Amino acid sequence: MKIIKESVPAADGFRMPAEFEPHEGCIMIFPERPDSWQYGGYAARRAFAAVAEAIARSEKVTVCAGEAQYDNARAILPEQIRVVEMSSNDAWARDYAPTFVKNAKGEIRGIDWGFNAWGGLVDGLYFPWDKDNKMARKLCDLLEKDVYCKRDFILEGGSIHVDGEGTGMVTESCLLSRGRNPQMTRDEIEDTLKEYLNLSRVLWLPCGIYGDETNEHVDNICAFVKPGEVVLAWTEDQGDPQYAMSKACLEYLEQVTDAAGRQLKVHKLPLPKPVTMTAEECRGLDGCWDEPTRSPGERLAASYVNFYISNGNIVMPGFGVPEDEAAREILQGLFPEREVIQIYARDILIGGGNIHCITQQIPV
Amino acid sequence: MKIIKESVPAADGFRMPAEFEPHEGCIMIFPERPDSWQYGGYAARRAFAAVAEAIARSEKVTVCAGEAQYDNARAILPEQIRVVEMSSNDAWARDYAPTFVKNAKGEIRGIDWGFNAWGGLVDGLYFPWDKDNKMARKLCDLLEKDVYCKRDFILEGGSIHVDGEGTGMVTESCLLSRGRNPQMTRDEIEDTLKEYLNLSRVLWLPCGIYGDETNEHVDNICAFVKPGEVVLAWTEDQGDPQYAMSKACLEYLEQVTDAAGRQLKVHKLPLPKPVTMTAEECRGLDGCWDEPTRSPGERLAASYVNFYISNGNIVMPGFGVPEDEAAREILQGLFPEREVIQIYARDILIGGGNIHCITQQIPV
Repeated sequence: MKIIKESVPAADGFRMPAEFEPHEGCIMIFPERPDSWQYGGYAARRAFAAVAEAIARSEKVTVCAGEAQYDNARAILPEQIRVVEMSSNDAWARDYAPTFVKNAKGEIRGIDWGFNAWGGLVDGLYFPWDKDNKMARKLCDLLEKDVYCKRDFILEGGSIHVDGEGTGMVTESCLLSRGRNPQMTRDEIEDTLKEYLNLSRVLWLPCGIYGDETNEHVDNICAFVKPGEVVLAWTEDQGDPQYAMSKACLEYLEQVTDAAGRQLKVHKLPLPKPVTMTAEECRGLDGCWDEPTRSPGERLAASYVNFYISNGNIVMPGFGVPEDEAAREILQGLFPEREVIQIYARDILIGGGNIHCITQQIPV
Repeated sequence: MKIIKESVPAADGFRMPAEFEPHEGCIMIFPERPDSWQYGGYAARRAFAAVAEAIARSEKVTVCAGEAQYDNARAILPEQIRVVEMSSNDAWARDYAPTFVKNAKGEIRGIDWGFNAWGGLVDGLYFPWDKDNKMARKLCDLLEKDVYCKRDFILEGGSIHVDGEGTGMVTESCLLSRGRNPQMTRDEIEDTLKEYLNLSRVLWLPCGIYGDETNEHVDNICAFVKPGEVVLAWTEDQGDPQYAMSKACLEYLEQVTDAAGRQLKVHKLPLPKPVTMTAEECRGLDGCWDEPTRSPGERLAASYVNFYISNGNIVMPGFGVPEDEAAREILQGLFPEREVIQIYARDILIGGGNIHCITQQIPV
């Protein structure tokens, strides 16, 4: 593995492919920490395994497990899924596995961004985050890919989406947060994204999903379904604080064009009714230092936009609520060539994210 | 990774290739434990790195490093060497990385033998050995090879040599030791080797190198250089207890034939004069539980037979003594097509083995 510090992907002819382009495989991390995953993580591990199995129907899946959970991961996951030992602080592959870029010859390289647990000492979610921050480089070594070193720039994979044709999409709430790169201007951040992902246009949604602890990652509110088309998490309930947030995003999307000069077609994807923590669930979570990680009645950042596009399927969350079915039908209509698999994901949501957050694709 | 329990390699058409057949690559483990490697392992790690670099001249090398040493391994090893995170109890890839077998179609599978630290609770060298014992299966998963599960049979890779044409070679002192498979007869052990390595003849040398803590592994006393030819560690000093041991092996080898019915040609490889621990070296070793692991003046099991055959080279130990050169010349004569690289290996020897012990080839 070569560590590249002297050049940037765009200058070398590399670009980040869209998630709907073909994958070599997918990376996941086995969940473990008892302040993220209720009741020792048993239910979360079953949910992660169901996601891994669904993805493995059409692409290779590698699951990283810490030493303590390795045997259990191997026992739970079917034999077609590869399990490798790798230490981490938590299980968000989207946010700390490498972002992969590809050139015209089909060569793949990784990008190793800095990671500080979604806000570092300002508003990060746990401390320390050293193991997570090492994963991108370890994964590139494992996968025998050269890696661009950009650890002086804090970025999570879930805070960016691209259409593969020069357009990127982020949220202001996240990329301009005080806990990430406060020394950089918005233009400097945009230029960095353009250089590393090979973009000519970056779309800045104002915000994301209400209560999303990641400072509102884009991957929970809006995603490309193809170049020129996005799905946007939506509610018609004007009494919900999410209403103004989704509306602000819609208004922004209606007045911008993408890298190819297209106006975006926006498909609304209705959110479930607010999903909240039960007291029983809260009792099953360890505290993080001296604070509880969740409180009874707390609203979780549930969104159907947090799906993964595998080679053959759309793997999307369900929450065991009536709204699940309408969301499934909308996504099935938007991806007619990939069968939608809906997985009961409340046990992933409790950890703070969803199916897109726990996966990272490797382009082919 | 499929775990195969219902069949054996020979029945499935798989055989263990000889070390001099082509390799896909080599597995090593980064040394760490302070009761094996003097003064915190700094010198050992440099020696391991020199071995890895020599092997990497002609084949891919993957080095497994525990979480604590991962960064250091990545910093010390050159970029062409892959470093993966994997926990272990010590650093003897030969003994607990999988033994690989191959079929006529070129498919490769691993064998996961039981490992108990060279004798378990009878005369094993450390406790516990759980992480070592898991490595074979973890490595097969990493390398995407199916694996034969034979954990109920205790065997280390360094206790077997094969010529790739149906002949295996072991020592009685090791394979019949009380700490390994005392419930099995010699015939049962031989039959197991025949089934798993696909052998028709097993040669049983009586013993190995004097003081070799592995119960005298074959790979420190005798090795195939091609089918029908072996090198044997030798001394002319009749006052050395090794004299009778090497002579007994020679006499045995002169009266047996291999699987093809050939009489073996035996090349004597003179040993260095006894290599002993200094008081200064002993002071740099932590104790193992309540015992020192080495004592001043203790003789080490130094032998030039403990070399590794890579695709393009012979990587052999030197001990900084005048005998090094003659040994190098003999091996160079026996392997005219592979340049011999001699590496100063006293810092590996102190740990209890040598270059062959810290490497495991993956056939191509």
